[in-house]
Amino acid sequence: MHYQLFYWTGIQGRGEFVRLALEDAAAGYEDVAREQGDDVIVQYLDGVHDGPLPFAPPFLKAGRLLIAQTANILHYLGPPLALVPQSESRRWYAHQLQLTIADVVAEVHDAHHPIAGSLYYEDQRIEARRRATALRETRLPKYLDYFEQVLERGGRQHALHEYSYVDLSLFQLMSGLEYAFPWAMRRIGRQLPLLHALQQRVAQRPHIAEYLASPRRLPFNESGIFRHYPELDDPAGAG
Amino acid sequence: MHYQLFYWTGIQGRGEFVRLALEDAAAGYEDVAREQGDDVIVQYLDGVHDGPLPFAPPFLKAGRLLIAQTANILHYLGPPLALVPQSESRRWYAHQLQLTIADVVAEVHDAHHPIAGSLYYEDQRIEARRRATALRETRLPKYLDYFEQVLERGGRQHALHEYSYVDLSLFQLMSGLEYAFPWAMRRIGRQLPLLHALQQRVAQRPHIAEYLASPRRLPFNESGIFRHYPELDDPAGAG
Repeated sequence: MHYQLFYWTGIQGRGEFVRLALEDAAAGYEDVAREQGDDVIVQYLDGVHDGPLPFAPPFLKAGRLLIAQTANILHYLGPPLALVPQSESRRWYAHQLQLTIADVVAEVHDAHHPIAGSLYYEDQRIEARRRATALRETRLPKYLDYFEQVLERGGRQHALHEYSYVDLSLFQLMSGLEYAFPWAMRRIGRQLPLLHALQQRVAQRPHIAEYLASPRRLPFNESGIFRHYPELDDPAGAG
Repeated sequence: MHYQLFYWTGIQGRGEFVRLALEDAAAGYEDVAREQGDDVIVQYLDGVHDGPLPFAPPFLKAGRLLIAQTANILHYLGPPLALVPQSESRRWYAHQLQLTIADVVAEVHDAHHPIAGSLYYEDQRIEARRRATALRETRLPKYLDYFEQVLERGGRQHALHEYSYVDLSLFQLMSGLEYAFPWAMRRIGRQLPLLHALQQRVAQRPHIAEYLASPRRLPFNESGIFRHYPELDDPAGAG
């Protein structure tokens, strides 16, 4: 199967969770907007094409199927890319974990955009400081401790006792958080040995290492979800 | 199959999307915390039980399966409850739509809790007014117009050309929004004839009508997701 991935150019964003799965599996795929520009996405959102109407990218075309929502795409790709266990119960669990990762990602986004995605960061900086503090102090420790427990239960090496797209997404989550909140993650990360070890193992997988070194892997930046605004992190040197 | 639904007592919350599906299908289910108290949920979250670790309710037990995340539960229940089309492509689309509904629900929650769910509303009222304005002016029209288009494409009666759990969830979304933002929804709702008609048809389905009239249907209240704080709505009489 040849896949077409549709996601905004210029950022990793939510598309990156899908991209990592396609890259790890060495699947044949086209990153359509990077070749044709973002307008090709807008046409789908505007309903120019028949069939399912996506609300937002990422979405994936696979033959005649069009699938939107990051976690849904991974749930679809898991079996053909051999990135999810065979067991039905583990597939439901994999998807639940991916949806919980999606929830963290939404909260991370809202830390720099607590009022509205349509307003500039500069117009919600004061609120962002309050929200980012709650994120760093309460939410991130809660979510990351949860995923650490998931790894503990999953045999310490994987979320699901064997390798899956959830491991890839946990790598991306940890990498993004370390970029955005280096000081907070230094503090919180002390309690997360299994997540750190997983992150390193994923980075060393041959196809992932190759991808991360390629120009296809964009650097994190301040237009994406994981943004490094020092005033939203723990004070430098703290902890 | 006998199902066990786990969700916090005292509110409709996210559990209501699952409850509506179970009620509509006249499925046998136990609303466990309503019988045993919220502690039974906390035990699962604390990892007392083996198997998948849920991050938050709702979660569902079906035989030996434990499934968490609202949209995941509905994706699972759709086929056995005959609440999703047979076609694979429509099932992926149903799930995408449900995940988009979940996104709206999260944004509605954050309108009254823009800084942190762990803080009282009273401690984030100023920020809530700003965020709710953006929600009413930009986000709700965008989301609801999207779902109106989905109905238009789905043959005007249903999201997916035939009845599904997505229709039930759109009913719940519209009902909650009308409770929380009666003035804004009067304004926005003028452009949503298909959503309104769907909402009324769902309310008249025999099992749903019976459920809505029963004590099992809790009223909306200010501990749930859809909260009526007049200062977060359009000014009374506006529009």
